[in-house]
Amino acid sequence: MTAKATDETRGPLCSIARSLEVLGERWTLLIIREAFNGVTRFADFRAGLGVAPDVLTERLHTLIDAGVLERRPYQEQGSRSRHDYHLTAAGRGLCLVLGALQQWGDEHRPSGLGPTVLRRTAGGNRPVRVAYVDDQDNVVQIEDVRLVRTAVDPRP
Amino acid sequence: MTAKATDETRGPLCSIARSLEVLGERWTLLIIREAFNGVTRFADFRAGLGVAPDVLTERLHTLIDAGVLERRPYQEQGSRSRHDYHLTAAGRGLCLVLGALQQWGDEHRPSGLGPTVLRRTAGGNRPVRVAYVDDQDNVVQIEDVRLVRTAVDPRP
Repeated sequence: MTAKATDETRGPLCSIARSLEVLGERWTLLIIREAFNGVTRFADFRAGLGVAPDVLTERLHTLIDAGVLERRPYQEQGSRSRHDYHLTAAGRGLCLVLGALQQWGDEHRPSGLGPTVLRRTAGGNRPVRVAYVDDQDNVVQIEDVRLVRTAVDPRP
Repeated sequence: MTAKATDETRGPLCSIARSLEVLGERWTLLIIREAFNGVTRFADFRAGLGVAPDVLTERLHTLIDAGVLERRPYQEQGSRSRHDYHLTAAGRGLCLVLGALQQWGDEHRPSGLGPTVLRRTAGGNRPVRVAYVDDQDNVVQIEDVRLVRTAVDPRP
């Protein structure tokens, strides 16, 4: 697919490319990781990530414009009204992307100390991983998955 | 987790952060997408992505240094020996990351024309998606997954 495989109004035809218009940058995905960890306030994102405030402001705006985060007003007693940042439904939909990234990092870039976070089922405390499954919810091995180009694919 | 949650020799303790040291950039993941599409040669990565050659050279080196791509020599009759680029086992392990990104882009950033690529089982031509599964290969719904911090997690 060429960089020109875009529609003036739709952006890139490839859904990976469209995702990376929002996410293809280190801080963006780490901000989303922090949001999944329960962080909502600018100062806590900043302290948790060690990111420059102007960069953080810019990335938060990108994520709000893309519908991944939303600003909500809050007010503590005796303080002026402020805003904090929450994942939208689209933002919460990124949990599989983060899960796949974590799994890859654990396997192919191990720290030697083990993961900082594990995923478990809420009910039975069973280990959880990211995998391919078919339309009958059967696990599909990676080597059994093939890519099929559709008529939308502009590659020659 | 703070930006200082790193070990001098190990890098960030968070596996997502370690993954993004290699992948947290738009072109990097699009280069890997092209590699999964069968592209191996510098000129074809360049033409397919419309990326500046110096940027492409830099990103390919990062991916080789991280063990995601490897250079292999090849020679066409009458031409001088050249190198092309192939996914390593670690690189092929990124298919779930790309699958999760594609799925999110299809759902939350639709082009309106449908996906350019579908995933199907090689055997039965069944649709394939990325999902959470437990250690008995049962699909786990996203709302049933909880994050459990380990002793390695430096957050207070």
